[in-house]
Amino acid sequence: MVRTLEYPKTDKNKVQRYNARAAYDLETIHSTIQTSIVLNVAFAPSPDNPFPIILPMVGAMGSFAHPSASLSEPLDCYVHGYVTNRMARLARDSPQGLPVCVSATKVHGLVLSLTPYSHDVNYKSAVLMGYASIVEDQAEKLWAMELITDKVCRDRWAETRVPPKSAEMSSTGILRIRVEGGSGKVRNGVAHDEREDEEDEALRGRVWTGVVPVMEVYGEPVADEGNKVANVPEYLSRYVSRKTEEAETGAKEAMKE
Amino acid sequence: MVRTLEYPKTDKNKVQRYNARAAYDLETIHSTIQTSIVLNVAFAPSPDNPFPIILPMVGAMGSFAHPSASLSEPLDCYVHGYVTNRMARLARDSPQGLPVCVSATKVHGLVLSLTPYSHDVNYKSAVLMGYASIVEDQAEKLWAMELITDKVCRDRWAETRVPPKSAEMSSTGILRIRVEGGSGKVRNGVAHDEREDEEDEALRGRVWTGVVPVMEVYGEPVADEGNKVANVPEYLSRYVSRKTEEAETGAKEAMKE
Repeated sequence: MVRTLEYPKTDKNKVQRYNARAAYDLETIHSTIQTSIVLNVAFAPSPDNPFPIILPMVGAMGSFAHPSASLSEPLDCYVHGYVTNRMARLARDSPQGLPVCVSATKVHGLVLSLTPYSHDVNYKSAVLMGYASIVEDQAEKLWAMELITDKVCRDRWAETRVPPKSAEMSSTGILRIRVEGGSGKVRNGVAHDEREDEEDEALRGRVWTGVVPVMEVYGEPVADEGNKVANVPEYLSRYVSRKTEEAETGAKEAMKE
Repeated sequence: MVRTLEYPKTDKNKVQRYNARAAYDLETIHSTIQTSIVLNVAFAPSPDNPFPIILPMVGAMGSFAHPSASLSEPLDCYVHGYVTNRMARLARDSPQGLPVCVSATKVHGLVLSLTPYSHDVNYKSAVLMGYASIVEDQAEKLWAMELITDKVCRDRWAETRVPPKSAEMSSTGILRIRVEGGSGKVRNGVAHDEREDEEDEALRGRVWTGVVPVMEVYGEPVADEGNKVANVPEYLSRYVSRKTEEAETGAKEAMKE
């Protein structure tokens, strides 16, 4: 089963026009972005360079204006990471922001059928298109830093030394991507073959068909040499278990049609 | 520890000029691409659209001219997947090929330090820039289909119904990306903090520091209802074990400085 999801083609202000189906799409698209540790951010580096560049960046979905907004609502994408000088300069030099594409893909399994032609991968993927600008407002920047930290490791922010010092604030780069549109794709299910192959008993007696689950699991936390906290904190072991459970459930659910 | 790797800035023909260091770089960059199930392929969709598009595609590194070439040698990148009409048309309409960027990222762990500022992710990533063209030569296309199938699931091709029928050949899209350059990045190691935080005993008594391993593991293969092969074939169970071992080793190795 393959589903292609589309962001509603509507002005971002017209939130009241999102219907249930659109809201569902937004949630699927946003949650695919939100559950990926690293996002791929593509941009055009310069008019005379024909190649787009893809940078791996850590990021999160959120709304500074409406911090309690859920994943099914219109959100911005905040990214932090290896903001190259070039990308930061391009974002700063573009009055409306640097056009970027953000993508994330989660693989759930290898689908092995009778023929290579019918082989597939169970996955969900999402892309967002939007304009990236450097976050200058200090309150928004601090909020986005917490958003991103807690997205990578839930409840971590409050358990560390915060707030950041002013030198830490100024040397951290956060980009807000104002989302203009996006789409998602989901491939679920088992192997399917052409009838002629499925009716070939000799072939079916010879070729194993099924799905190999693929899961991004989190292992037992390994303390640093300098760590002075006796046990792994409860919020962290809970998060690690939850992420691994999510991965296992995701792989299992993806096998259903 | 962070390392940035660069593809040698040399004409692709001048293979003899790659020295040991360059070869090592190529191997790291190529193997990052090669061990990722899904690759991100970015391209500019049209001159009047400011947003690059990123597509998730299945692909593999290889050389049709020198099929025995190792990952440390100059290679093309072959991709197969959701070749949109637009991308295929663009590739067909560009005499030298469509400029694309291919990227892959493997996350090995979450690095949790005393401050959010010093938090990091252990990962390796690679990008390749090159010109994508549709593979028209049938021998090369067949070879690339086997290359990609066996990259996703080693030894699978020969265990299925091959060769593909002519209708399967003609409805399969394979793109060859002639690589012009690339780079890679590796972040390994443990958490590091500023001296002032490290010397704050109260802080260290309160904040757990260390690494949460992240591993893309492969689960026990799940047979389809229609499967007639009694046991999971040996090549498949061996591959599944190997991929999981690689993920566990990768996460462990990434914790070393």
